[in-house]
Amino acid sequence: MPGTGSLFKRLLLGRAMRSDKLGETLLPKRLALPIFASDALSSVAYAPDEILLMLGLAGGAFVATHSWQITVAVVLVMVVVVASYRQNVHAYPSGGGDYEVATVNLGPRAGLTVASALLVDYVLTVAVSISSGVQNAATVLGFVRGHEVIVAVALIAFLTAMNLRGVRESGKAFAVPVYAFMLAIIGMGVYGFVQHFTGTLTPAESAGLTLKPEEGQGLTGIAAAFLLLRAFSSGCAALTGVEAISNGVPAFKKPKSDNAATTLLLMGTLSVVMLGSIITLGQWTGVKIADDPGAQLLRNGQPVGDSYVQHTAIGQLAESVFAHFPVGVVFVSIVTGLILVLAANTAFNGFPVLGSILARDGYLPRQMHTRGDRLAFSNGILILAGAAIVLVIVFKAEVTALIQLYIVGVFVSFTTSQIGMVRHWTRNLRLERNAKERARMQRSRIINAVGAAMSATVLVVVLITKFQAGAKYAILAMVVLFVLMLGIKKHYNRVRDELAIDWDVERPMLPSHVHAIVCISKVHKPTMRALAYARASRPSYLEAVTVDVDPDETQSLLDEWDRRDIPVPLKVLSSPYRQITKPILDYVRSIRSGNPRDIVTVYLPEYVLGKWWEQILHNQSALRLKARLLFTPGVMVVSVPWQLQSSEGAERDWIDEPPISGSVRGGAL
Amino acid sequence: MPGTGSLFKRLLLGRAMRSDKLGETLLPKRLALPIFASDALSSVAYAPDEILLMLGLAGGAFVATHSWQITVAVVLVMVVVVASYRQNVHAYPSGGGDYEVATVNLGPRAGLTVASALLVDYVLTVAVSISSGVQNAATVLGFVRGHEVIVAVALIAFLTAMNLRGVRESGKAFAVPVYAFMLAIIGMGVYGFVQHFTGTLTPAESAGLTLKPEEGQGLTGIAAAFLLLRAFSSGCAALTGVEAISNGVPAFKKPKSDNAATTLLLMGTLSVVMLGSIITLGQWTGVKIADDPGAQLLRNGQPVGDSYVQHTAIGQLAESVFAHFPVGVVFVSIVTGLILVLAANTAFNGFPVLGSILARDGYLPRQMHTRGDRLAFSNGILILAGAAIVLVIVFKAEVTALIQLYIVGVFVSFTTSQIGMVRHWTRNLRLERNAKERARMQRSRIINAVGAAMSATVLVVVLITKFQAGAKYAILAMVVLFVLMLGIKKHYNRVRDELAIDWDVERPMLPSHVHAIVCISKVHKPTMRALAYARASRPSYLEAVTVDVDPDETQSLLDEWDRRDIPVPLKVLSSPYRQITKPILDYVRSIRSGNPRDIVTVYLPEYVLGKWWEQILHNQSALRLKARLLFTPGVMVVSVPWQLQSSEGAERDWIDEPPISGSVRGGAL
Repeated sequence: MPGTGSLFKRLLLGRAMRSDKLGETLLPKRLALPIFASDALSSVAYAPDEILLMLGLAGGAFVATHSWQITVAVVLVMVVVVASYRQNVHAYPSGGGDYEVATVNLGPRAGLTVASALLVDYVLTVAVSISSGVQNAATVLGFVRGHEVIVAVALIAFLTAMNLRGVRESGKAFAVPVYAFMLAIIGMGVYGFVQHFTGTLTPAESAGLTLKPEEGQGLTGIAAAFLLLRAFSSGCAALTGVEAISNGVPAFKKPKSDNAATTLLLMGTLSVVMLGSIITLGQWTGVKIADDPGAQLLRNGQPVGDSYVQHTAIGQLAESVFAHFPVGVVFVSIVTGLILVLAANTAFNGFPVLGSILARDGYLPRQMHTRGDRLAFSNGILILAGAAIVLVIVFKAEVTALIQLYIVGVFVSFTTSQIGMVRHWTRNLRLERNAKERARMQRSRIINAVGAAMSATVLVVVLITKFQAGAKYAILAMVVLFVLMLGIKKHYNRVRDELAIDWDVERPMLPSHVHAIVCISKVHKPTMRALAYARASRPSYLEAVTVDVDPDETQSLLDEWDRRDIPVPLKVLSSPYRQITKPILDYVRSIRSGNPRDIVTVYLPEYVLGKWWEQILHNQSALRLKARLLFTPGVMVVSVPWQLQSSEGAERDWIDEPPISGSVRGGAL
Repeated sequence: MPGTGSLFKRLLLGRAMRSDKLGETLLPKRLALPIFASDALSSVAYAPDEILLMLGLAGGAFVATHSWQITVAVVLVMVVVVASYRQNVHAYPSGGGDYEVATVNLGPRAGLTVASALLVDYVLTVAVSISSGVQNAATVLGFVRGHEVIVAVALIAFLTAMNLRGVRESGKAFAVPVYAFMLAIIGMGVYGFVQHFTGTLTPAESAGLTLKPEEGQGLTGIAAAFLLLRAFSSGCAALTGVEAISNGVPAFKKPKSDNAATTLLLMGTLSVVMLGSIITLGQWTGVKIADDPGAQLLRNGQPVGDSYVQHTAIGQLAESVFAHFPVGVVFVSIVTGLILVLAANTAFNGFPVLGSILARDGYLPRQMHTRGDRLAFSNGILILAGAAIVLVIVFKAEVTALIQLYIVGVFVSFTTSQIGMVRHWTRNLRLERNAKERARMQRSRIINAVGAAMSATVLVVVLITKFQAGAKYAILAMVVLFVLMLGIKKHYNRVRDELAIDWDVERPMLPSHVHAIVCISKVHKPTMRALAYARASRPSYLEAVTVDVDPDETQSLLDEWDRRDIPVPLKVLSSPYRQITKPILDYVRSIRSGNPRDIVTVYLPEYVLGKWWEQILHNQSALRLKARLLFTPGVMVVSVPWQLQSSEGAERDWIDEPPISGSVRGGAL
């Protein structure tokens, strides 16, 4: 899927879109759905597996009785969260996103908590989606098996390259695979249901196996309850991505909020239908998913052993439903893999966008806000990719392991945002007098309060069931990010205070004299240009300066200076230790110490070359000198460039600043 | 041995030695010998082993008959080479070194060949000496065995750290271990000889074993000759380091050349005596050294197996000679290990010095010449250490494997230098009329010619016997270095030609007007200072410029500008795509295009901060803008620094430029 990320950008923003032309590119619902929903919809590719696998720890019978309960619970949470975010969409048509909602209503610390959580979850979205995509691909591409980590890392590297290059494609490239995935899963569901009721449904490949409880997983009350909660937690992965639409409201066609709310509802319905049909078909076809298939699955009472290949739930269902239509199996596998890659790509867009918003607010290096520079954007992409690759390697691309870290961030974000929304309505109710409006607000507040309570409950369940299994690492990462971003903010505030001018006390004073010195090592074009420019600036005093490192060279320089009759005095600074920087620094300081109200302008000839390796061969002394001079008060450093032939055309190789972009989803229009 | 490298520097140069005080630190012979000879003398720690091991491939009988022949051949080469270099010392009291001799007499390509060869051999000196030191240490420190690579890498890292930090020590720290090593080896020889002639010499631990020829190593004429030549090649490792004294002549007390020649003779004699006594004692005590000891050594007709621990020749001899005086064994092992580390350290001095000379001549980045900067020196140390570590890891710290790559460089250097000396005398003879002088020169020319022939013969032997075994990699590295350095030289020449002024044609023209623009984003102290400095420079035209990325921010900037009554017009550059760099570039170009003889001065306020991480958070836009502006003709870029509080004291953290040093050995006084 080359370039889906940039396509995203292009769809929303275009390559060279002027601020005043933005209206033209607003999204109809049929395009907004695939763009914003790929993350949420793709989670049905792994959520059912995780539900079945967790329950399966207590054996096949436990799965049969409880998988529906878990599904109903997940659907209930989904309904509540979707209903809650429909309120967000109406209240923050600016596409505020959870970060803005939390910051505005609960203060900067809450906003920063949400931001840390979301940044960590973006990384996990990439790791989980890609790992699941690779697992799904292994259903039809047998050679992938055993090389999951390498394939996953290669896929992340591929996405990174695509996003770094910013390849652009047409809108259909994004919409087609998402609709194809919906078609595949829902089509499989409908066809499977028909087969079931006509009695022609082929049993799953694992239907004939017995699922044995894992060692030590007794069915005592507490253990069973814990397992149910763990299965529920994993199933809640289906909710990730729900917030995406609420962030993207400004990108919708008018009426924005209504369209966004409708799309949100549509997405929720699709998720619920797909999840439900997969779980139902799984029960009917007898799909068995085990945590440790080789030991837990029995054939005629004997463990199937490590040679057994366990396909994903979707893979097994496709094999059953399309038993007589193999093209269907391949189609389901391909589109499932594709939508998972698209979901990962969503994070490649979201992560830098959130980074840009955080940079605007001073929590990340400021240059990340001014997205005018591709480098900053690239850094975001590289950090995301690097972190995801580390996770994939450490957790061996196993979805079941990675999912233990996932969702914490999403539910931290959900909960904080919904609490913020309750505050929002409470505050608005204080001002609103219109009875009808008040009734609407009160209804919204109740919905958000229920959403907050539900999200908080899920968060507690997730924390309890997953903390030890891995969530602790995710929480640690969030805490580190939180502290880091707070530190950056504090630094910027300190600098701002230090730089602020107290106009009552101080008025900038004009320096009385300008001493210009031109650093000379040889008589050639760059130094002559520096001298000419320095003279054109008409300083109060002007002299050329050279450091006597090698007496012979110094003498020949002096001779040439006289011979060429250069109309500027050349001062020789002695350097008994043959240093270059220090004599010049000492000289500059000596000028200043005599005349503290004067300033010293140091002219440095610089070569401009085309190639990076050429740069290594030049300018090093000048750079070092400049770095030291900047520490000296009352000094200006003037670079007088000389463009060598090799620099011609090299400037064209510089990557042009792309327009500041991607802020739409962040609501920063 | 902490700081022996810097001690070297300190002995020769001192920490803050002024050029005019250099005379005070000249070396008496008793200090010059240990300083310059550690490399050459230390090779007797591994050369005997390699001779015995190579001959041993053809079995014990072959060793017994031929080891003396090989030793005599090596001693013969040593005598010739020492005699030849005594000529160099007299002819080039400047301490020219082989690089200078080759360049002056045979042209730059020959000099560059020598330089490439020496750079590669410095790396191998470190790898071989350290590996041998570790092997020797294993004789008394059993726990080192099996961890040779890690210990060797750790030792190189230690030397690197010491040389990077530049710890200084007293001269004795260098002289003591070298004299101790001489004492140990010669003492062991004398004591062993006494024991032999009194019939009390204990047989070596391997004396009771039989050395079986290696599989497939028949004793046909050609195979035997080849083995003899290989053994001879490996034995010639004893000659590495002979050239060190000829490089160091200027560091000797007067009469410099005579003292240096005497020291050279002393060193050669010591080497010969030590090598001869080790081989002789080895024969008398029955030391067996095998390439594959587990299979080649037989006890009662059975291979001793892989559990057999083969100690070095010096280690085995010490065990025999000091059988009743265990302190002697420990002493020999320790001083052998120490002198090998000192030998490696020699390369840590020589490599950057040679790099500095090459940089002076334009073959390496120029900033490596101006040793004023410790960074360049550090880079040399790091490159040397990195390359040596790679070699140690790849060749598993095995001296026998590494020695196959060694010596090629030394003999390329010997041969080229001696041919150059022949040319030198021939040229001088053309001018010299004094008959006595002519006779002396002709005698010298004959000695150098013999030296050249001998070196060339050894080089051919080394190439034939070692090419396939590893020398090819060393040669490849030399070729790569040669091509690289030639490319750098060509680049510098091209730039020099491009920058040269043709005074008949061109006279630098003074620009007619100076347009100054000050880049403003906010009204705070740094921008006000930039504005004040720009005004003090009294340009023809002055305006402040801001880029309209965010209309609200721009408006509030304009308001403040008016409110504060700032006496410079503020121009707002529109930026429809919210870029920063491009609008300013376009504006600067538009000024220039109207007035090509004018120049534009762009004032950039820069923050100066104390911590590197603070730098990341600031100045990025300014740096990017500056980088682009430098490509634009007719532009000066002025950095106006604002020192933030955190920068106070940070300048003191900068490493001070050390004096340009180390050139003494390179003869660049």
